[in-house]
Amino acid sequence: MNVPAPGLPARVRIHEVGARDGLQNEKTAVPTAVKAEFIHRLAAAGLRTIEATSFVHPKWVPQLADAEELFPQLADVGAELPVLVPNERGLDRALALGARRIAVFGSATETFASRNLNRTVAESLAMFEPVVARAKEGDTPAHVRGYLSMCFGDPWEGPVPVHQVVSVAKALLDMGCDELSLGDTIGVATPGHVRALLAALNESGVTTDRIGVHFHDTYGQALSNTLAALQHGVTTVDASAGGLGGCPYAKSATGNLATEDLVWMLDGLGIETGVDLAALTATSVWMAEQLGRPSPSRTVRALSHKE
Amino acid sequence: MNVPAPGLPARVRIHEVGARDGLQNEKTAVPTAVKAEFIHRLAAAGLRTIEATSFVHPKWVPQLADAEELFPQLADVGAELPVLVPNERGLDRALALGARRIAVFGSATETFASRNLNRTVAESLAMFEPVVARAKEGDTPAHVRGYLSMCFGDPWEGPVPVHQVVSVAKALLDMGCDELSLGDTIGVATPGHVRALLAALNESGVTTDRIGVHFHDTYGQALSNTLAALQHGVTTVDASAGGLGGCPYAKSATGNLATEDLVWMLDGLGIETGVDLAALTATSVWMAEQLGRPSPSRTVRALSHKE
Repeated sequence: MNVPAPGLPARVRIHEVGARDGLQNEKTAVPTAVKAEFIHRLAAAGLRTIEATSFVHPKWVPQLADAEELFPQLADVGAELPVLVPNERGLDRALALGARRIAVFGSATETFASRNLNRTVAESLAMFEPVVARAKEGDTPAHVRGYLSMCFGDPWEGPVPVHQVVSVAKALLDMGCDELSLGDTIGVATPGHVRALLAALNESGVTTDRIGVHFHDTYGQALSNTLAALQHGVTTVDASAGGLGGCPYAKSATGNLATEDLVWMLDGLGIETGVDLAALTATSVWMAEQLGRPSPSRTVRALSHKE
Repeated sequence: MNVPAPGLPARVRIHEVGARDGLQNEKTAVPTAVKAEFIHRLAAAGLRTIEATSFVHPKWVPQLADAEELFPQLADVGAELPVLVPNERGLDRALALGARRIAVFGSATETFASRNLNRTVAESLAMFEPVVARAKEGDTPAHVRGYLSMCFGDPWEGPVPVHQVVSVAKALLDMGCDELSLGDTIGVATPGHVRALLAALNESGVTTDRIGVHFHDTYGQALSNTLAALQHGVTTVDASAGGLGGCPYAKSATGNLATEDLVWMLDGLGIETGVDLAALTATSVWMAEQLGRPSPSRTVRALSHKE
């Protein structure tokens, strides 16, 4: 039932992360042809921004080691296809293939920067700086997204102070990132904390149109946090088709917000996304068959059981 | 991280339905001693309103056929213990055992009234009228809750018009119900629809303090709908410990909002519930062991995997 939603945006851009953030967390590598079909089907379902792969060293993420093989197969996908690049070497690889949207992956906390990037936060920013500068060079600069993980809680440090997130966020924007993606990597955030961080970013001069949100459903909070962000004016929301990205039954349950659960809410709120929920659900059911286990998305389960 | 939550209530009363709404949907009957221990543990975890059982005819709900045996074992539980009564015979049984809080179970749609109660909506209201009247008789009238199912969507009728829900809601209050519980029985609601129904009830003279909400997580929407209700001023929220009530993996996924997922959000918002989340989670883990399957609550899974 589409009810007008006062105070909410008319349209939301979904940044689909299933093919990158989802598949990089799978135990085994998915065949390149399956990835290509997945991304084509996501685009056919109406998604307009589909993160395609990562140009990180294959040693670290063997699941996405086929980036050079995959990316050229996506030339006819009618959607933006951002790719993750960890450093200048990754940027070279991405640009050589004609990538026009890149993303760097920073951390709001020292512990996670150390464990994930083997650097301090300052060192990681220094590593991104030439990446972003070179991406923005020339007549047709690439669009650059800055991921910021552990924006709310950190498994080692606990709750993350808002001012600490603001500081790293501003550094990423100052070096040239076009947009931020605020990640609740361990899924502990709640709506008041979301509002507090968004308000603090605004106060420090970061406008809401440059902020995307990236929530995880580890504690079942992703969609209510998203609602709080929408109420604050956020119009870019990261989600993963079928909830790919960390098995919810495993110890390290990292479950991304499922795109279908998000689209169900946005459809109900009368917020446009351009996504055909039935086509998207069918895509996630198909992908779950490829992976050999059911989708954790509640909407996928409910809709596919009806079929 | 407890952040002050402007515009939200300072305290929420959780109406715990796991022992009734949850266990009545189990395939097999849980032993009476286990039910009694469950309810004692829920109270020890800080829940103050725990729906204990149903005085429906055992033929219809054999899982709760032990109500006469169970209820006296709860005399020392330090919490309100509402019970469901379908008709005058059920009321007699409940009052004979000293129940001080009862609930009747109505439907906002004709199809569900016909299928669940074998009556029209008008006939079901006529059946409840003497139940409520007699419950309110005497010097110490019982507290009466009126459940209203299918308030948002109905599997046979589709979206349910707001005015239709308002009409049945007002009839329940007019006959003497102290509070309503607005049920999204098939889990299809979204936040704008929630706000629209609450606003329509207010406009027709029903004050928010008499309204509880009862959301199902079939499409992953329960917690964001709850947030919308809290933002409207609702302070009574139904939830089920561990998400008991309809297996989320089954065809008829009816999953109640898990109390733990709710408490995680309310704790984060700085809204008091009196509930000790660790004790509640331990209770749900124990109950899941009794039932032989894992809890569908994401918070229970995340917290218990850490232990």
